Amino acid sequence: MLLDQEYMNLALTLAESAKGQTSPNPMVGAVVVKDGRIIGTGAHLKAGEAHAEVHALNMAGDEARGATIYVTLEPCSHYGRTPPCAKRIIDSGIKRVIVAVVDSNPDVGGKGIQMLQEAGIDVEVGLCEKEAIELNHAFFHFIKKRRPYVTLKTASTLDGKTATVAGESKWITGNDARADGHRLRHQHDAILVGVGTVLADNPSLTARLDRGEGRHPLRVILDSNLRTPVDALMVTDQLAETLIFTLKTAPVELEKRLTKAGITIIRLTKMNLDHVLDELGRRQVQTLLVEGGAEVHGSFVKERCVNEVVQYLAPKLLGGRTASPVVGGEGIPRIHDALNFSIHSVTQLGEDLRIISKVRGE
Amino acid sequence: MLLDQEYMNLALTLAESAKGQTSPNPMVGAVVVKDGRIIGTGAHLKAGEAHAEVHALNMAGDEARGATIYVTLEPCSHYGRTPPCAKRIIDSGIKRVIVAVVDSNPDVGGKGIQMLQEAGIDVEVGLCEKEAIELNHAFFHFIKKRRPYVTLKTASTLDGKTATVAGESKWITGNDARADGHRLRHQHDAILVGVGTVLADNPSLTARLDRGEGRHPLRVILDSNLRTPVDALMVTDQLAETLIFTLKTAPVELEKRLTKAGITIIRLTKMNLDHVLDELGRRQVQTLLVEGGAEVHGSFVKERCVNEVVQYLAPKLLGGRTASPVVGGEGIPRIHDALNFSIHSVTQLGEDLRIISKVRGE
Repeated sequence: MLLDQEYMNLALTLAESAKGQTSPNPMVGAVVVKDGRIIGTGAHLKAGEAHAEVHALNMAGDEARGATIYVTLEPCSHYGRTPPCAKRIIDSGIKRVIVAVVDSNPDVGGKGIQMLQEAGIDVEVGLCEKEAIELNHAFFHFIKKRRPYVTLKTASTLDGKTATVAGESKWITGNDARADGHRLRHQHDAILVGVGTVLADNPSLTARLDRGEGRHPLRVILDSNLRTPVDALMVTDQLAETLIFTLKTAPVELEKRLTKAGITIIRLTKMNLDHVLDELGRRQVQTLLVEGGAEVHGSFVKERCVNEVVQYLAPKLLGGRTASPVVGGEGIPRIHDALNFSIHSVTQLGEDLRIISKVRGE
Repeated sequence: MLLDQEYMNLALTLAESAKGQTSPNPMVGAVVVKDGRIIGTGAHLKAGEAHAEVHALNMAGDEARGATIYVTLEPCSHYGRTPPCAKRIIDSGIKRVIVAVVDSNPDVGGKGIQMLQEAGIDVEVGLCEKEAIELNHAFFHFIKKRRPYVTLKTASTLDGKTATVAGESKWITGNDARADGHRLRHQHDAILVGVGTVLADNPSLTARLDRGEGRHPLRVILDSNLRTPVDALMVTDQLAETLIFTLKTAPVELEKRLTKAGITIIRLTKMNLDHVLDELGRRQVQTLLVEGGAEVHGSFVKERCVNEVVQYLAPKLLGGRTASPVVGGEGIPRIHDALNFSIHSVTQLGEDLRIISKVRGE
């Protein structure tokens, strides 16, 4: 027989196993326990399909009567694409529900717990709450701000160069770090680059995983003057949708050619990241990976639109006062105003290091 | 009763306790063991004072007869500032000597071991050899190359900025990282900066430790045109010797004023780091800490004169294409020619990270 916390940790592990495949839904895990024995486990695997509680209760079957269910997020109370989980829990005869964290989604927001309590079920909230929030930090961010959670990705030498003074950038990091970068793409709803990166590298920005292709995120290009070539990979490869943000002043002729090639163009009065992120939020983009270049990173830093940084550092020195830095742009003039992060993890990947930092005060 | 390796590890720990205070001598530790009981321990604490073996044998006294001694470096065989340790070991009646690594110093170079063997003592070499070489990597480097082991020190934001676009640099890293930087100075024979750093920050480059002042390293300035002001702290504070490398073309008048203030001036035909390092080697500088700025770091990278990098990374982003980078200079144009390191350690210091990398193929 395990402790409450151990059952909840198992539910969290189940939830996390579906990382990158549940969007726009959060990751959720559930464990059903009776007389100290696990009789059901489940995770939410894909939006539109069964929720974690349903999988776990299906597994438990009639045994669920009188049992306890551990669930990492408040059970839903509304008819969405699936019937409400709270109702299903009530119908199954569950006696006690342990919830890690309340769902701050306005459609739920405590109503699931209320429904359970009104049915006479014993409900406890807050076990492993911190871990449960951390697990779905992007989801909670999106629910609150209606904007994607933004992760800046960089790959550089120890001295922060993303290319040599001669412009060489292939490859600074090793195979393991690059493979991890593809997993990172797989875990995001959209990837954003500047047109400079399109012109320099002509990337496809798809998630190339070891086994199979993974999920290809929406591709977003910031391109004030519509300089994206109609024969760019992101325009022609049909592997994922591509969205271009441009200015009102960009030539209509160029827009027509790109639209005809299947690209969505959004015109803004000003290339303001608030507008870009609001628009992506409206399009249900919960997680955005920003992959450069230096000037785009500079805008995200200057406009304080970074929630997380994933850095791949290759143990090399290249030097060069004109070599491309990780973050360019106008810069923040006062140290006091710097974007402040805390180090979340440091991992060795082959010869390289991956440093993940999260913004303070989120 | 411990294993051979455990005794040697203790000897290595004893040796390392004197880090930063034995130069130009290596760190050495010794443990004397008889019938499975430790009867003597010692470390070399300061050049000119007793070697590790002598301390350990003094502690063991008459009990040393028939005992085993574990020593991290081959005992010396020559009369230097102290009598040869090999002789002392023989005189003490030690029966068995376990040596981690042979001393590659031409004055010793196996002669210590030979002397012991000729006296009928059982000698084994190579236990924990890797750790013993690592412990004194700078000493071994110096013995081989007759030049200091060069460590580049940097303190920057995550995006590799050492100052904001407006030039603010105080303070990017936190208290713990800065205190560690002072310990690093304490462990070096000399610290080198460019005149740009002298003009911008007027540093004293002393080792300010928590308790007491530590050992102040020799201060070295690269200053092609003798722009170092006579009222700079490094000229006036009398806390440590200051050496300036300049060009043959620098004004004699400026040299006179600095020489009168007690500064040593060395004129070179060209500001070539090979010449600088050779000269420092001649002056018995075994370890050199290079503390910037970006252009000086750039020269060390370009001329491939870096053995180790100690980076303090503050979890901040500042951005700015004109903000000062960690390494400037001309840069290396091909990735293939980058200086390659391996990550030696990553340590959290307060909010910051310290990453230590060592050059490959040393």
